[in-house]
Amino acid sequence: MPIQRAKYDVIIIGAGPAGYVTAIRCGQLGLKTACVDSWSDKLGRPNLGGSYLNAGCIASMALLESAKIYHSLTTGLAQHGIGVENISLDVGRMIERKDRIVAEINRHIAGLFGFHKIDHIHARAKLLQAGRVEIVPVKGGEASYLNADHIILATGSKPLELPYAPIDREYIIDTGDALNLDSVPKRLAIIGAGIKGLEIASIWNRLGAEVILLEAQENFLNLPDRHISLEAYRIFTGQGIEMRLGARVISAKKSEGKVVIEYQNHEGNDTLHVDRMIVAIGRKPNSEGLAAPEADLLLDESGYVHVDENCRTNLPGVYAVGDLTLLGPMLAHKGIEEGVFVAEQIAGLHPIINYDLLPSVIYTDPEIAWVGHTEQALRALGEPVKVGFFPMSASPRALTMGRTEGLVKVIAHAETDRILGVHMIGAQASELIAEAVLAMEFCASSEDLAKTIHAHPTLSEALYEGALALRKMALHLPMSE
Amino acid sequence: MPIQRAKYDVIIIGAGPAGYVTAIRCGQLGLKTACVDSWSDKLGRPNLGGSYLNAGCIASMALLESAKIYHSLTTGLAQHGIGVENISLDVGRMIERKDRIVAEINRHIAGLFGFHKIDHIHARAKLLQAGRVEIVPVKGGEASYLNADHIILATGSKPLELPYAPIDREYIIDTGDALNLDSVPKRLAIIGAGIKGLEIASIWNRLGAEVILLEAQENFLNLPDRHISLEAYRIFTGQGIEMRLGARVISAKKSEGKVVIEYQNHEGNDTLHVDRMIVAIGRKPNSEGLAAPEADLLLDESGYVHVDENCRTNLPGVYAVGDLTLLGPMLAHKGIEEGVFVAEQIAGLHPIINYDLLPSVIYTDPEIAWVGHTEQALRALGEPVKVGFFPMSASPRALTMGRTEGLVKVIAHAETDRILGVHMIGAQASELIAEAVLAMEFCASSEDLAKTIHAHPTLSEALYEGALALRKMALHLPMSE
Repeated sequence: MPIQRAKYDVIIIGAGPAGYVTAIRCGQLGLKTACVDSWSDKLGRPNLGGSYLNAGCIASMALLESAKIYHSLTTGLAQHGIGVENISLDVGRMIERKDRIVAEINRHIAGLFGFHKIDHIHARAKLLQAGRVEIVPVKGGEASYLNADHIILATGSKPLELPYAPIDREYIIDTGDALNLDSVPKRLAIIGAGIKGLEIASIWNRLGAEVILLEAQENFLNLPDRHISLEAYRIFTGQGIEMRLGARVISAKKSEGKVVIEYQNHEGNDTLHVDRMIVAIGRKPNSEGLAAPEADLLLDESGYVHVDENCRTNLPGVYAVGDLTLLGPMLAHKGIEEGVFVAEQIAGLHPIINYDLLPSVIYTDPEIAWVGHTEQALRALGEPVKVGFFPMSASPRALTMGRTEGLVKVIAHAETDRILGVHMIGAQASELIAEAVLAMEFCASSEDLAKTIHAHPTLSEALYEGALALRKMALHLPMSE
Repeated sequence: MPIQRAKYDVIIIGAGPAGYVTAIRCGQLGLKTACVDSWSDKLGRPNLGGSYLNAGCIASMALLESAKIYHSLTTGLAQHGIGVENISLDVGRMIERKDRIVAEINRHIAGLFGFHKIDHIHARAKLLQAGRVEIVPVKGGEASYLNADHIILATGSKPLELPYAPIDREYIIDTGDALNLDSVPKRLAIIGAGIKGLEIASIWNRLGAEVILLEAQENFLNLPDRHISLEAYRIFTGQGIEMRLGARVISAKKSEGKVVIEYQNHEGNDTLHVDRMIVAIGRKPNSEGLAAPEADLLLDESGYVHVDENCRTNLPGVYAVGDLTLLGPMLAHKGIEEGVFVAEQIAGLHPIINYDLLPSVIYTDPEIAWVGHTEQALRALGEPVKVGFFPMSASPRALTMGRTEGLVKVIAHAETDRILGVHMIGAQASELIAEAVLAMEFCASSEDLAKTIHAHPTLSEALYEGALALRKMALHLPMSE
């Protein structure tokens, strides 16, 4: 898109979810806005949405959808009275579907940029000083300079690499490459059993790969409540995903068409031979080269951009949102909300953002979602809490769907009954968590949830039953006071 | 189960969702409880859950789940890169799965009855007077008599019949029979395009039947907001379900292995030949013979039991809940909440029930759900309203799922911004409505919804975007103030 203006109200660097949403809200609020982004599609064309859309969560979810369908064909179809023969899988076409969906969302965002008269500049940008950005076109050419009263940094993050297992894009790959494999590896190792590692494990497990997760930590999945992590461990290992905890990778290299992984655990050293290895050990902020040294943009030792509670950096009129900052976890909706928050500040509005009520989601099969505190964290703080559980196996709706794995846990203050956390694993947990977030936004008591009518039969009743269980009054569980 | 006590605190007549939940809550609250029910399974054994579980919504949903899987195999599998050959369908086994799920829930309820020491009496019951019930065992034998301080009537409802098209259980069938067909009819007529008619249409359409809905009313689906009904009409006809509105059936009879239906519309008389005809014109309360004439239980002219706002009938200590009363629509969760409400009253608690915030759900594919008022009703009352729409086609999550049909509509008061209604059609609408109900329980403004962080990408964002759209600030739609 041509650069129509040399002076903008706002320049946004990065067009991932945080960046593109910031641009849209700026456009809606009447600000002259440019969004500079360097992402290119497979053909080298500019592509909005960043790694999140193109190589991250959306792409991953599109693949998981296909993988779940494939899995449902290979198991349990007979119970429905449905028979099929000669099930075949063309991973290339599955990836093409994912690419088509991503391209459709790309076009949708481009259409929104057009509607809001946002200039999309396909270039690498560098912050020179407050108010001034250097632009180098992705396709080459001379640098140019843009000025704006407000500059918003939204360049996101990229996968961390293991120094002793360098990514070769073919055998040792990162989480983005893991969404573009051309066939199902027979044996697949994933280094890191965190959010991304689990999401990718779900996809390839559902497609028939033998998946082995190597996790350096002894505990499995520390972020959600312990009960949910334990249930997740049970469910995923039950699906055939192998978990090797306390396993520190020492080296990995290609050898005779395989990857040979050496790792240490408390029993000593061990070796693993796999067809592909995916490094999923976390992400780091994309802040290298983001600002000229003389700009004096303050970063921390890990490269995160320092911001205050209003997403303002140390430079006047320069903000940072999304994965670049340590204000909250690396979640798309954190970046989106921060983008809206900053755009509205610039427009002179008085927005708010509530980091305490950011829901977290792991897009596995089944999904994991939570909001608020864990029981363990609350007890460590000495908070008096009471908890309620509801297993999905007691949900009539889950039974009709054949999705009885998982549970909901509701945690409330023992005296005030205020809900302090909701944690769940199960089908559609990513959707069910929304009600819990809203409840906590209203400082609801668990009794409020228990008194709100839930449609029967639905999975959302599990939250209602969890709140009832907290007072030993769940309807579909054997309990009484 | 043996009758252990002649005198109970509470006798509940009927073990559908309203009845069995009432019994469970009474048990939890320490009340000596009996639940009398006459439903038998295919082998004549007692079966808890009533027609709702055994021949209604749960059974229907279990079948729809299978039908959706079958449909997904026959359309659109190729785009996922998945191939199958020789797809076969054994309706008998599909029905068996449904029966197994129903039986599992039956057992689950029986287990809860055992835990709570609720006497389940497999018998027909008749209210003789306040405090006294006559019991006639289903398997025959002498009548006996039970006494209780409190009697709760929860016998539910049954399908209405057309006098000129008598049910023969084989060709002209009711909505319960429609869940037990032994094969997919080539051509199927459903009389009545209401909730049940649509749910059954979805199942058999997904299984490949040619489905024709004959609806006497000129307007399609009057209950949800008009925008949702129009969208539903568009979606369902797009799926191949044929809608004949303003079509009044005059007669239907079996002839040469077919059903010949004569109906009238504004163009005159017409005839339709189909393989099966399902009567789905609504339900009537199961109140015939429920009380002895000398009990003087007050019914209205349609057979509904008269109750006050506390579900009390005209007889002291006698209550009615669920489909038997006109207090709210015929929804399982209405009966469930009323059951809890009455049980807690009896136990001396001070429960509340909010009929204004009963969510309604139609379990079609996609689902329809709503809570609160329609825009049309509010405008007719002269309320100043503003509305926001969000189409599922703009939802990134819906795109990854390939479920882009449908929309969410949020209606708020134009001045106070309080949410007055939320209506939706789309995948998982039955789950998404839960957040809207909770929002309205808290008298939320649409701004409250728009300021609550929703996980990205989820379908629940459609509600958030709908609330944003109401202020022309939807992020993923081309709109600005």
